[in-house]
Amino acid sequence: MAEFIEPIEIIIEQLRSLPGVGRKSAIRMAFGVAEMDSEKLERFASSLLEAKRAIKECTVCHNLSTNELCSVCSSPERDRSIICVVEDVKALMAIEKVRSFKGVFHVLGGTISPIDGRGPDDINVASLLDRVNKGGVTEVILATNPTLDGETTAIYLSKLLKPLGIATTRLASGIPVGGDLDYADEMTLLHAMDGRKEI
Amino acid sequence: MAEFIEPIEIIIEQLRSLPGVGRKSAIRMAFGVAEMDSEKLERFASSLLEAKRAIKECTVCHNLSTNELCSVCSSPERDRSIICVVEDVKALMAIEKVRSFKGVFHVLGGTISPIDGRGPDDINVASLLDRVNKGGVTEVILATNPTLDGETTAIYLSKLLKPLGIATTRLASGIPVGGDLDYADEMTLLHAMDGRKEI
Repeated sequence: MAEFIEPIEIIIEQLRSLPGVGRKSAIRMAFGVAEMDSEKLERFASSLLEAKRAIKECTVCHNLSTNELCSVCSSPERDRSIICVVEDVKALMAIEKVRSFKGVFHVLGGTISPIDGRGPDDINVASLLDRVNKGGVTEVILATNPTLDGETTAIYLSKLLKPLGIATTRLASGIPVGGDLDYADEMTLLHAMDGRKEI
Repeated sequence: MAEFIEPIEIIIEQLRSLPGVGRKSAIRMAFGVAEMDSEKLERFASSLLEAKRAIKECTVCHNLSTNELCSVCSSPERDRSIICVVEDVKALMAIEKVRSFKGVFHVLGGTISPIDGRGPDDINVASLLDRVNKGGVTEVILATNPTLDGETTAIYLSKLLKPLGIATTRLASGIPVGGDLDYADEMTLLHAMDGRKEI
């Protein structure tokens, strides 16, 4: 039996599809939606859709952007010879926050996962190889998360890149194993970046 | 300086307008929205709007409902001589969960608050008096939260109702003072309901 009237349950279910939203918080938010006046809710919904339409993917590195090139790729100050490969935009932002990395990024949009049946074609590997093949890249930092899938992906990429004469490095220990890169504090990330080692 | 690109900040700001959503969880959810494919987001937004349109207010007690009368007011098994007055629908639901109360409800939609400048006309007091004046009501349980504004509202209502020959009661101690009714556990609520006393 549903705990609430059907439209409230529908709102709860929709809100739960967002990351990090459990049933308790979804209930709280659903009552907020129910109590919002209809005009405000219309504005809420159209703001989300409009903002979403304004979000593009950088054509070079797959970072989120409002233009064809993201703020990193369009900056003249970044060193295009070092590419830091991350799983997602949140990891990219965690590294950007430290302000020590002067290279550019490549967002994979996930990991290779033999268990979940995700292969290299399901993530942005081809576009990474294109970038490397265009020349000028000397090092690729494989900053995927220190999880099973993250490690698998890093090893796969290093096997692809090493034969092309590219140095492949991995962030140094310091990030707790099994953890998530975007939860690491700035000092930990700074040390991990400085102590990166070849794999 | 904004931490994220503008459309992401707009989504974060919109999500933060929902109850219980802080910046950290809004960021997490905003990236979920950014990564959602556009069709799914359109469905998300239209589901919210459609569900919202299906939510009505019970014409008798102001409970949320999909019909003119809510499930409590339309039930033939409820005792219409006892009205339990609550601040909001969440408090009503907390009491319904205990399944010990057989009377009906009246949702005020807030409290009287001299400090915030909310008077009796800003909440559903007039419709409560209408119900009482129609006759047949013997007791009104003033189940507003045990906060300053909740107590003020209960005392105001008891002064209005007592001259009409209506017994006015308040939930027994058991609910932590300063707390929120919809966070009380079921046993606490059960005891508070059983031990209600006249004010």
